[in-house]
Amino acid sequence: MYKANVTITLRASILDPQGKAMQHALHDLGHDSVTQVRAGKHIEMLIDADSSAEAETVATNACEQLLANSVMEDFSIEVLELESASAA
Amino acid sequence: MYKANVTITLRASILDPQGKAMQHALHDLGHDSVTQVRAGKHIEMLIDADSSAEAETVATNACEQLLANSVMEDFSIEVLELESASAA
Repeated sequence: MYKANVTITLRASILDPQGKAMQHALHDLGHDSVTQVRAGKHIEMLIDADSSAEAETVATNACEQLLANSVMEDFSIEVLELESASAA
Repeated sequence: MYKANVTITLRASILDPQGKAMQHALHDLGHDSVTQVRAGKHIEMLIDADSSAEAETVATNACEQLLANSVMEDFSIEVLELESASAA
């Protein structure tokens, strides 16, 4: 069993109103040192695969086909092996 | 200048209908090996601070005061120093 941590971020050229709203709210709370905020998605998947490479392929296909908008978003994938789950 | 990568996840005991919907959609696309999906948030902040520790404190306060719901969510913070930005 593998765990894939997927991070999906808006491309730098895309305006991020959600991040701007967070930044303004942080400034209102006194956190003036925060000069930029960008909001994205974090998705954790458990994947039943025979190898880390196979799990990464599944996660990549999932992002390309469903989870990420390839026009506006980039994604990165980190695959970890779960020892305890595979032994169970 | 420091960059803080904040990951906000629902606590394991909290039901995640968004993740369930993603999992069902992935199964419909044929990705039966995906056995669990949990959705969370990824927030990137640029912080003007004198040290990594100071930047982490700002990011932690931002999460506790605004970004994360401490009843239902956990957060983790990774702080990176941006060399090029501080030299600019």
